Amino acid sequence: MSYIIEPLAKLTGHLASLPGIGGKTAQRLAYHIITMAPAEAQSLAGSIVEAVDSVRYCAVCGNLTDQEVCSICSDATRDHSILCVVKDARDIMAMERARVFRGVYHVLGGTISPMDGIGPDDLRIKELLSRLPEVNEVVLATNPDVEGEATAIYLGRLIKPLGVKVSRIAHGVPVGGDLEYTDDMTLLKSFEGRRDM
Amino acid sequence: MSYIIEPLAKLTGHLASLPGIGGKTAQRLAYHIITMAPAEAQSLAGSIVEAVDSVRYCAVCGNLTDQEVCSICSDATRDHSILCVVKDARDIMAMERARVFRGVYHVLGGTISPMDGIGPDDLRIKELLSRLPEVNEVVLATNPDVEGEATAIYLGRLIKPLGVKVSRIAHGVPVGGDLEYTDDMTLLKSFEGRRDM
Repeated sequence: MSYIIEPLAKLTGHLASLPGIGGKTAQRLAYHIITMAPAEAQSLAGSIVEAVDSVRYCAVCGNLTDQEVCSICSDATRDHSILCVVKDARDIMAMERARVFRGVYHVLGGTISPMDGIGPDDLRIKELLSRLPEVNEVVLATNPDVEGEATAIYLGRLIKPLGVKVSRIAHGVPVGGDLEYTDDMTLLKSFEGRRDM
Repeated sequence: MSYIIEPLAKLTGHLASLPGIGGKTAQRLAYHIITMAPAEAQSLAGSIVEAVDSVRYCAVCGNLTDQEVCSICSDATRDHSILCVVKDARDIMAMERARVFRGVYHVLGGTISPMDGIGPDDLRIKELLSRLPEVNEVVLATNPDVEGEATAIYLGRLIKPLGVKVSRIAHGVPVGGDLEYTDDMTLLKSFEGRRDM
């Protein structure tokens, strides 16, 4: 006879299906959860349902929000003439945390990746083009990997002829990084992008 | 203006309060959860509430169960004359997985630890003593750390005069372990516990 506590096994299974949570971690979490105060566990469960129900995509930029239009797009103090194009909403979170950008964003929802069958039509490029008439500059902030670069080059060629300034975020040795341990491609980028002092 | 999505921040906060889940992991999980199908998220939330509501302690051994008496204690095919004393219910899970023991268990609910203010009266020792009349042997399977050893010694002194056989699980070099990297205390235990071949 195998020894299984049904509700515990079910909870463990659910937790183990989350990304980055393995079987052991799921079991540890499940044991923690069943020793929680019922009110606390209900609050955790409630926050899951509430988040799934209320968080949606911003109708303007595609960012995550619990409103119709996200707090960035509806913020009149931000510069709506400069648009930062990112792969997904998590990138916005990172940039907002760093407080490096005061314009508005546009989420592509992915990057061009023929290997995964993702072409330009699968991204929010049509929506991006429709925003261009009100924009002076587009900053392409896709990741510095193959797909991100390809997407940036594609968007650059698409947008430039429309008379809008297009720029790409700088790649190079990260602050606090060590030249000795920096990969070749990053070193190459840091030389290509060198500036007069 | 800081940029926060209230339901997402609440969910992230809840997840980050779980053991071993840091801020970054909580955020990653929260992002995954909000992209789940609503039914799937509801199922996850439901399993949390269900587990907290239905899982309780076995009235006999203190193991976790969704019944009045756990499936091990109510299993007539097991040997009820040999009792394995463990620190908590997770230890039972490990032993059952390894299929090394066919008797029944007793969960102490902790180990004696004066530093943390946990004395014998805080453990389920009274309940253990009340089970002894039906038992031939007690195997002490607390962890081989300071508190576990102290608890084992305490229980041994308490139970032996009652005429019940008391044993302690063996400590030594783990199977697949390497002598070179084994700590001194484990090596000492493995010599103390050596057996004729």
